Amino acid sequence: MDFTYSARTTELLERLGAFMDAYIYPNERRYHEEIEADRWGHPPILEELKAKAKAANLWNLFLPDSHHGAGLSNVEYAPLCEMMGRVHFSSQVFNCSAPDTGNIETLERYGTPEQKARWLPPLLDGEIRSAFAMTEPDVASSDATNIRSSIRRDGDDYVINGRKWWISGVGDPRCELLIFMGKTDPDAPKHLQQSMILVPLKTPGVTVVRPMHVFGYDDAPHGHMEITFENVRVPIENILLGEGRGFEIAQGRLGPGRIHHCMRLVGLAERCLELMCRRVKGRVAFGRPIAEQSVTLERIAESRILIDQARLLTLKAAYMMDTVGNKEARAEIAMIKVAAPTMACRVIDWAIQAHGAAGVSQDFVLANYYAHARKIRFADGPDEVHRNQIGRIELAKYDDRH
Amino acid sequence: MDFTYSARTTELLERLGAFMDAYIYPNERRYHEEIEADRWGHPPILEELKAKAKAANLWNLFLPDSHHGAGLSNVEYAPLCEMMGRVHFSSQVFNCSAPDTGNIETLERYGTPEQKARWLPPLLDGEIRSAFAMTEPDVASSDATNIRSSIRRDGDDYVINGRKWWISGVGDPRCELLIFMGKTDPDAPKHLQQSMILVPLKTPGVTVVRPMHVFGYDDAPHGHMEITFENVRVPIENILLGEGRGFEIAQGRLGPGRIHHCMRLVGLAERCLELMCRRVKGRVAFGRPIAEQSVTLERIAESRILIDQARLLTLKAAYMMDTVGNKEARAEIAMIKVAAPTMACRVIDWAIQAHGAAGVSQDFVLANYYAHARKIRFADGPDEVHRNQIGRIELAKYDDRH
Amino acid sequence: MDFTYSARTTELLERLGAFMDAYIYPNERRYHEEIEADRWGHPPILEELKAKAKAANLWNLFLPDSHHGAGLSNVEYAPLCEMMGRVHFSSQVFNCSAPDTGNIETLERYGTPEQKARWLPPLLDGEIRSAFAMTEPDVASSDATNIRSSIRRDGDDYVINGRKWWISGVGDPRCELLIFMGKTDPDAPKHLQQSMILVPLKTPGVTVVRPMHVFGYDDAPHGHMEITFENVRVPIENILLGEGRGFEIAQGRLGPGRIHHCMRLVGLAERCLELMCRRVKGRVAFGRPIAEQSVTLERIAESRILIDQARLLTLKAAYMMDTVGNKEARAEIAMIKVAAPTMACRVIDWAIQAHGAAGVSQDFVLANYYAHARKIRFADGPDEVHRNQIGRIELAKYDDRH
Amino acid sequence: MDFTYSARTTELLERLGAFMDAYIYPNERRYHEEIEADRWGHPPILEELKAKAKAANLWNLFLPDSHHGAGLSNVEYAPLCEMMGRVHFSSQVFNCSAPDTGNIETLERYGTPEQKARWLPPLLDGEIRSAFAMTEPDVASSDATNIRSSIRRDGDDYVINGRKWWISGVGDPRCELLIFMGKTDPDAPKHLQQSMILVPLKTPGVTVVRPMHVFGYDDAPHGHMEITFENVRVPIENILLGEGRGFEIAQGRLGPGRIHHCMRLVGLAERCLELMCRRVKGRVAFGRPIAEQSVTLERIAESRILIDQARLLTLKAAYMMDTVGNKEARAEIAMIKVAAPTMACRVIDWAIQAHGAAGVSQDFVLANYYAHARKIRFADGPDEVHRNQIGRIELAKYDDRH
Repeated sequence: MDFTYSARTTELLERLGAFMDAYIYPNERRYHEEIEADRWGHPPILEELKAKAKAANLWNLFLPDSHHGAGLSNVEYAPLCEMMGRVHFSSQVFNCSAPDTGNIETLERYGTPEQKARWLPPLLDGEIRSAFAMTEPDVASSDATNIRSSIRRDGDDYVINGRKWWISGVGDPRCELLIFMGKTDPDAPKHLQQSMILVPLKTPGVTVVRPMHVFGYDDAPHGHMEITFENVRVPIENILLGEGRGFEIAQGRLGPGRIHHCMRLVGLAERCLELMCRRVKGRVAFGRPIAEQSVTLERIAESRILIDQARLLTLKAAYMMDTVGNKEARAEIAMIKVAAPTMACRVIDWAIQAHGAAGVSQDFVLANYYAHARKIRFADGPDEVHRNQIGRIELAKYDDRH
Repeated sequence: MDFTYSARTTELLERLGAFMDAYIYPNERRYHEEIEADRWGHPPILEELKAKAKAANLWNLFLPDSHHGAGLSNVEYAPLCEMMGRVHFSSQVFNCSAPDTGNIETLERYGTPEQKARWLPPLLDGEIRSAFAMTEPDVASSDATNIRSSIRRDGDDYVINGRKWWISGVGDPRCELLIFMGKTDPDAPKHLQQSMILVPLKTPGVTVVRPMHVFGYDDAPHGHMEITFENVRVPIENILLGEGRGFEIAQGRLGPGRIHHCMRLVGLAERCLELMCRRVKGRVAFGRPIAEQSVTLERIAESRILIDQARLLTLKAAYMMDTVGNKEARAEIAMIKVAAPTMACRVIDWAIQAHGAAGVSQDFVLANYYAHARKIRFADGPDEVHRNQIGRIELAKYDDRH
Repeated sequence: MDFTYSARTTELLERLGAFMDAYIYPNERRYHEEIEADRWGHPPILEELKAKAKAANLWNLFLPDSHHGAGLSNVEYAPLCEMMGRVHFSSQVFNCSAPDTGNIETLERYGTPEQKARWLPPLLDGEIRSAFAMTEPDVASSDATNIRSSIRRDGDDYVINGRKWWISGVGDPRCELLIFMGKTDPDAPKHLQQSMILVPLKTPGVTVVRPMHVFGYDDAPHGHMEITFENVRVPIENILLGEGRGFEIAQGRLGPGRIHHCMRLVGLAERCLELMCRRVKGRVAFGRPIAEQSVTLERIAESRILIDQARLLTLKAAYMMDTVGNKEARAEIAMIKVAAPTMACRVIDWAIQAHGAAGVSQDFVLANYYAHARKIRFADGPDEVHRNQIGRIELAKYDDRH
Repeated sequence: MDFTYSARTTELLERLGAFMDAYIYPNERRYHEEIEADRWGHPPILEELKAKAKAANLWNLFLPDSHHGAGLSNVEYAPLCEMMGRVHFSSQVFNCSAPDTGNIETLERYGTPEQKARWLPPLLDGEIRSAFAMTEPDVASSDATNIRSSIRRDGDDYVINGRKWWISGVGDPRCELLIFMGKTDPDAPKHLQQSMILVPLKTPGVTVVRPMHVFGYDDAPHGHMEITFENVRVPIENILLGEGRGFEIAQGRLGPGRIHHCMRLVGLAERCLELMCRRVKGRVAFGRPIAEQSVTLERIAESRILIDQARLLTLKAAYMMDTVGNKEARAEIAMIKVAAPTMACRVIDWAIQAHGAAGVSQDFVLANYYAHARKIRFADGPDEVHRNQIGRIELAKYDDRH
């Protein structure tokens, strides 16, 4: 047992922290002002900060085993990911933002040389962004086999039809690529019906219908879009890995994606706990500082416990992915998917309460972060699906015993 | 003990329900579309519906002991208020919306004949709206003695200076009147420093700065506004009841206001439970209807228990206000202020979960209702203030015993 | 709506309270000392107190519509039952203790004149006690149709075989009668297989095996016994209502039994809250009275809210039983069965915490009361069964709507 | 980061597990039967098992840096301690039971050569047992400075007077030594008033008054005793470290003691989860195996998450004690003191619920384990004291920032 971060992580963490202090926190207000001024545009501050991050060699940190990235394992990257989670837009500054990270890994692992040559350079350079189009409005998409959109072969093209929603990142004017999941063969065995295919966003027939709201937030300019696909034609070369391999690719994406989400939620919760602490130290009610109230101390203590436990569980899951693989780590991955957003919602709600009505307003990040954490409870399927899986894995331990 | 609603309530409830079925539910979409089209305007549908409600004699139902209203006691009005709570904008249709109801009662009880003659007719007719300006950004306003804004006598005028926020209803273009609370005498005994005064919204020096957001909602066109008052002059006749009586008036407002909030929250929770039930009946996941999952049944059962308990406690508080008065009922009033919004948040969160990601989106009222219920946990002071008071009242029972 | 207790209840409540103050609380210690001295005997103090209660005309208060009892409706009796719940053994003092109350009602309603003549007088006089033998170790008895014990006709006798457990009250040396449930016809339709029959405890073949423990309590001398029945012969006249009517009788018992349990739990929780309040007022830690800690005030407040809500819900259920009948009130009866013991466990646990380690010890009633409340969560089936039923009733409301 | 147990731990864990399977689990029933037959005696089975454990070189595993023990660090010992926690009496089999472990460490660290020579050999051999007498009935002992018992110098003796309770292990007939804490100088500075002194249990004036019960359990033969000390004389050589050093020694004991408690609770919770899993697999209700109910799966999943998080947090605290010392790890030590027993109570309560009424009875260990876990919430002070400390440490992080 060793709970110390690796030297590589420690060094990066220090530099990342210094960068956050110098450039990220001081520009949070400016970022939001630029968004307000041009809701679906690309805020200039981001490009400024990205240039600085590249110069500081804090770029593509997420990328494992690669000369493009930092070459960190999951457990090494996790603490960096956590720190970025403290400020919602900062992942993008370091080119570590979802869903690009997952898409880049998908392309690296499953792309043809041509696909990689076309899309990886601009993505790794942060010039363009990408999205992942899987969830559909009419089916329980937590079960990937339910996906209904069709990808039909027609000569040298595939013709795509369907409706997707909650496609995050498509609001960004620089978003150019969709990785699209749909059925190439509805008559194939259940796990071989789906395929993934690359769809440039500007292809005719792709229509962005509207942004989905999350507790009133449209998350501009990122956005979680509803998109229709009507007879969208792309060349057959755009298929990933081959027909019927979609489910397989989807499984491969899940592990790191969840680890990243969960570590960012740990960072986000730390930030909110910090806000809570600062608030209660400076606030007096009924003649005493709120920080002196035992109910306040109890909530701070419980928050500290919840956060530390969620971090440890996430690191453990990352460690298992690194050592025994995603499949063996599937219970742990499911566990953090349940634990981290629940923890974050719990901590943020207390932080909101400590701020009074201001806590739900635009004057603090708290309500926005709550909405985000609450939404994550649905990402990759609702908690119930994961708890179901965890429960079954646990029960199976007793199958051959008496 | 008699848990049956009075004949008067039963009859009104039936008519109100019929009206909701005929006119309110079918127009929810149109209401939201009109708001989207003109966010801070006055949606035409409201006037249409108000006319119908007046014609149906479902108007000013909240008004106790009065020839203008229905003459119902608190416990009699509560079930009607609950039903209106099922659709957020419906209270206004029946001229029963906050903060007008509290302002009307305040004017009736404490206003001079001239004040009543000027403001009551248009308010009772639903021609104009009003707001209540008490909460301030820089102090813990849950303790009304903290209010800092100044009301200074200058000849035949009062000159008002200060900053208020979360002033609900000011976004409405028809809002014309503010009941303003501030200090006339900072040197008077603590509970005699505050006064209330009528301030027409158009008085020079009154500046609406911005709407406060609740999560991502600005609640247009109602709005919860931040307002500055700079040397705002109103004639001395505008004072309510006299200098130093502000705290006294504030106390008088509290009881009915909380009962109404809580009953609307009961109705709102009922609506969300209904949405949850309908959703799970029509949704299949992993081969079984969600309605058949025991975890779903558990949540529905707990929701039913929580809602029914909150309703009973609120009715009990209303009954005590009617029979022994607001002062004797202060523990019960504080108890529902804690119990009702907590219950609503709990039930709505489950309803959201049952809807998947759609539950947090604009496609359902759930996230909006959650934000509202969460905000109510701060109205008239955060839960902690009320629990503190309830705890002290309980402990005092043992002061003279051993 | 009327939340005032009836004049009859108020008058009885006053006299009952005076009796508790004069005779019950002052004798709690003596009761426990007598039990310690003779664990499975009959403590003399009980007979002393019973004589006083009879003399005070506080006897058989539970009995509805009867010249033997107080003739109170369920909603009228509930507050008296609550008060008795404050001291565990006090119900017996007023001849209102379970399971005798249910057995007396069963005999009154379903017994033959001979059965009544034989058993009612000594039971109504408090000379003997009785038990109800339904639960079996090997089946989920929450579903009464699972009961397996056999009642086989043999000439003019029934021959009974089976194993029962958790048969409360059999430890009492004065217990003479069992109402036994078992199968007379395993081939009949599901709800017509069971019958109930009167079995004198001394009948040959009846063997009390052991007391079941509840946490570490054996609840002597009352006891929750495991009993075997081996070829136990009783005359055919002992059958209640007739063969195959057992399920029907069981249903009839449930409503009042649950109301009583729940009201006693409300009283028990009130007692524990009182203990908590007294404790924290007299205890100083880290320089401040515990009563001044906001975390203490929060728990007292939440306890007050939980108790009051559970009381109201139980009264509502009682009221419905009185007005629309047990069948129509089945959702409400199930709801209190879930809500009351959960509430009590919650409140008592806080009270324990306020007492430090002493709270789990024999120096206070708290741990014992907790164990009792926890056990009630299984009486008549575990919470899950009731929540399942409540959920289904709720969902059924939307069967014919869209 | 490395989540793998050390080779030494892994090897020991394997051997310990094999021993548990071969000798501990199969003898649980016999252990309880022997206790029932002679409640305050010494069950023969224990000596049999101890001999086997010694022979298997599974003895004094807890002892760090010592030729008498296994020489494991805290983080290395923790998983072994967890495994012993699965069966309550098993720690004693391996001579790893509290409070002997803490007393042995105290003697090793602070004892004179004579004190060590007299007491360590029989303790390390498992021939005698010992207890730690600190808690007093009349003061909040969570604050060690409150201890009131007096240790007065009189010639070559100290004369001891006072009343202690919850002195665990004194019920064991082999208990011979008490480490006693009391005041040598009530006028010294607050943290220098207390001293610790060795008191043989048979010294005249030491009277064991009674066992304290925990939810009805007297925990015979171990026992948590109330003891009076009346003019108890021991030679001055019995003092530990010197007058006024009691508080210092008490602080030194805390860390490992809590780690052990918490790891045992993790093991105990694992055992209960195992019982729950086995139960629900074999039980059918309303036509379906309970294991198939989603509410069951949810609870199993939450239990798995809670247990794994508590284990990780405890290991982290152990790791910090090993690497940065108890003082730097004080927040983490306080955190597990809160988290582990709360987790255990939560998991056990679900396990009880899965067993029906049998779950609270003597037929399963569940209720007994619950009582134990609930009691641990008071050991070394109630949760509130620890949360208070954690909260203050957290807030202090922001003292010098703004």
